[in-house]
Amino acid sequence: MTSPLLHAPTADLLDRFASLVGPAYAVTDHAALAPYLKESRGLYHGTTPMLLKPGSAQEVAAILKLASETGTPIVPQGGNTGHVAGGVPREAGGDLMLSVERLTRIEDVDPVGNTLVCGAGCILADIQSRAEAAGRLFPLSLGSEGSARIGGLLSTNAGGTAVLAYGNMRQLCLGLEVVLPTGEIWNGLRRLKKDNTGYDLRDLFIGAEGTLGVITAAVLKLFPRPRGHQVAFAGLGSVADALALFERAADHAGPALTGFELMPRIGVEFTSRHIPGVRDPMASVHPWYALIDLSTADSAEGAQALMAEILEEGHAAGLVRNAVVAANAAQAKALWHMRESMSPAQKPEGGSIKHDLSVPVAAIPAFMAAADAAVLQAIPGARICAFGHMGDGNIHYNISQPVGADTAAFLARWREINAIVHAIALDLGGSISAEHGIGQLKRDELAEVRGGIEITLMRRIKDAFDPAGIMNPGKLLAQRL
Amino acid sequence: MTSPLLHAPTADLLDRFASLVGPAYAVTDHAALAPYLKESRGLYHGTTPMLLKPGSAQEVAAILKLASETGTPIVPQGGNTGHVAGGVPREAGGDLMLSVERLTRIEDVDPVGNTLVCGAGCILADIQSRAEAAGRLFPLSLGSEGSARIGGLLSTNAGGTAVLAYGNMRQLCLGLEVVLPTGEIWNGLRRLKKDNTGYDLRDLFIGAEGTLGVITAAVLKLFPRPRGHQVAFAGLGSVADALALFERAADHAGPALTGFELMPRIGVEFTSRHIPGVRDPMASVHPWYALIDLSTADSAEGAQALMAEILEEGHAAGLVRNAVVAANAAQAKALWHMRESMSPAQKPEGGSIKHDLSVPVAAIPAFMAAADAAVLQAIPGARICAFGHMGDGNIHYNISQPVGADTAAFLARWREINAIVHAIALDLGGSISAEHGIGQLKRDELAEVRGGIEITLMRRIKDAFDPAGIMNPGKLLAQRL
Repeated sequence: MTSPLLHAPTADLLDRFASLVGPAYAVTDHAALAPYLKESRGLYHGTTPMLLKPGSAQEVAAILKLASETGTPIVPQGGNTGHVAGGVPREAGGDLMLSVERLTRIEDVDPVGNTLVCGAGCILADIQSRAEAAGRLFPLSLGSEGSARIGGLLSTNAGGTAVLAYGNMRQLCLGLEVVLPTGEIWNGLRRLKKDNTGYDLRDLFIGAEGTLGVITAAVLKLFPRPRGHQVAFAGLGSVADALALFERAADHAGPALTGFELMPRIGVEFTSRHIPGVRDPMASVHPWYALIDLSTADSAEGAQALMAEILEEGHAAGLVRNAVVAANAAQAKALWHMRESMSPAQKPEGGSIKHDLSVPVAAIPAFMAAADAAVLQAIPGARICAFGHMGDGNIHYNISQPVGADTAAFLARWREINAIVHAIALDLGGSISAEHGIGQLKRDELAEVRGGIEITLMRRIKDAFDPAGIMNPGKLLAQRL
Repeated sequence: MTSPLLHAPTADLLDRFASLVGPAYAVTDHAALAPYLKESRGLYHGTTPMLLKPGSAQEVAAILKLASETGTPIVPQGGNTGHVAGGVPREAGGDLMLSVERLTRIEDVDPVGNTLVCGAGCILADIQSRAEAAGRLFPLSLGSEGSARIGGLLSTNAGGTAVLAYGNMRQLCLGLEVVLPTGEIWNGLRRLKKDNTGYDLRDLFIGAEGTLGVITAAVLKLFPRPRGHQVAFAGLGSVADALALFERAADHAGPALTGFELMPRIGVEFTSRHIPGVRDPMASVHPWYALIDLSTADSAEGAQALMAEILEEGHAAGLVRNAVVAANAAQAKALWHMRESMSPAQKPEGGSIKHDLSVPVAAIPAFMAAADAAVLQAIPGARICAFGHMGDGNIHYNISQPVGADTAAFLARWREINAIVHAIALDLGGSISAEHGIGQLKRDELAEVRGGIEITLMRRIKDAFDPAGIMNPGKLLAQRL
């Protein structure tokens, strides 16, 4: 084969791969494969001749070694909850899939050192529960936590709702075990807070979207469980007021400010209309809302006092027009549920063109003003539902189609609108992907917006780690010709 | 030249390098070069034909381009405060030096986005002051902050005394500008909290000790200034008690615990004896001490109450035998000064064999017991002065020579004792360099203790970024033959 990556594996080769994991874990049945091929937004439709479910790092190593020797492309997959088509195979077919779903061992929970060692197949919610059982917190939290797996969360450097205080997945990981494309196993499962011994290989694999190797296990950081927790929902007049309130909240709360989420009026309307159990918690109507989340080490009273201080000061400064504070955990959960339903609530409203961008926090009002004007000029009547992690500068700038418009025609303008909105974010020093990654969705755009040397360096790393080009080809970087 | 790296540059080539920065910034005078060649512990004695002081990233680029074309080794240097001989030239001579000391611009301080953009030559103390003037905190703090420069601090991923709450330099940096060995400039000066757009180049350059390129500028993170600050000094019975107290302090204070430093009795004696202005703050004598540092967002009273709670609980549990709380900023500074004088105070006591290691926090008592036994067996009468950042698992396990012993004969056992102590740390899952890095001092040992694949991956990265092998050769990795 002159260009093995362009050819589908032969039946004989598939048998060799299957023998590495045993027939029970080599899936070829169409119905069984379907959920692994379905990409979250339905924008991509990949196919695969076989899905492998290795039960150990050694089996992963055997698969990658054979893949490198035979030039067989391998697509690793975690919980398949990603939004950029990074974990599904390409449409052309021929990509073998490797699911980490059987690597679910939780080996060690150390409440003194605040670490947890687990397999890449563990589901986020299970890790959260296991930490809680040890009296500790694993703070990563996001909408898909019931099915997202640690390996995928690491490979996309997942963010979510607690990044403001605790950081992304990158900041929550101390060590990794990675199987390299050549089949070697790197054991970097260190539980150390400080370790300056050479190049930072860990952070190179985190966020690499499975293009440099397969993460098989990780050491995660745990935290003391806060004793105080308060969630409030504040009605605001403008994005600029939201920014001013964020500054005050951050100043008063310091690291106790665990969330500051921005939501528009239209998002509250969409969720109230379409999501069971969600209702507008206020009688009055406001153009913008902030969800403020505080976690304090000391006590429930400490958190209450802090929230009262922030809201009172915000009110006195004319920033907070109305506010409700969750009286208990159930009410707090309901407020977060509204926030997490912002994206799903757009579905019944027709097509939605989405963005996951970031700008420097101080630039959010300028970004919103410029983007709104440009989008409404391009698509009069478009319903902009921009929400997100204001404290991180991360806006999910989503646009629902005009009422009554043709959905397919609207969605056909996805890339055109992306280009308009991303140009505004980039002008302000922003990023075209804050937390979802690149995958297939933004691969070509990344190459366009980042200077040549940056892509060149990434390509050099890719070639150095994966000389056969087998690891998740065509994701993040274009496939080498 | 068949092996250009082994030859010193010709006079003609030196002239070409000098012309890139102008004669005023191309130093060849022996007296003027001396401070750049002096390594902090006097273990290495390098020489150089010329030190270049570029005034811009463009001049750095011109230097590296010419170096790559001519195979001339370049050693970048910041404030020359490192402890592993990573920033001084090799003894063989022929290495050109590049100081970033003229890159001292502070371009942008954004108190809303909490970022500061500065040149790699800025001195840490100046950055701290500039942040303070903007009502913000830049938390990195270490003994040499009056002369250490940002470029060197990034290249060694410096730690210091506030890592527990704020992280190492890696966690305090959002973006970089780096000149590559080939002379290309990577502008990664992003001020974004979230940016998932490909491989994490930033973290690859941080901690690379100048072997992959020259960091010329950085975006640093700022923080709100805490309103409450408390420092206490507690007398303890054992390392195990110190660990138990740390756990309680972390549980009560959460992210408000900004420092938890361990010190032995002998360290308090050494500092009281040799460091002007330092005195034992307690009348009673204890085998171990902890310095506890709290920073709270809310108020001075909040920090006081929290410290009282931790000390009272520690006392009730039989962990804290005596404690003093600093009554004002001057007293707090005096307690920190004692801690920071632990290493210099060993100098008048003769030779000192040093370690900068880390283990999982929970393993510190086991490490100390095993290391003490092994060291005292090897060198009866050795005076172990082990202190450090307990909350980070980072112990500076330093050993002063026996009273009256021959200093040269004692120091001749440096590597033998390192091997004994490091083996114990590694057995416990530890690291041979927690915060100082590898440089020349630990280069060969790193290659021994880390599995082959890890060094292989680092070598592949090095070769991909620096094909001519000009960047700080022989540091971190052995020079390629």
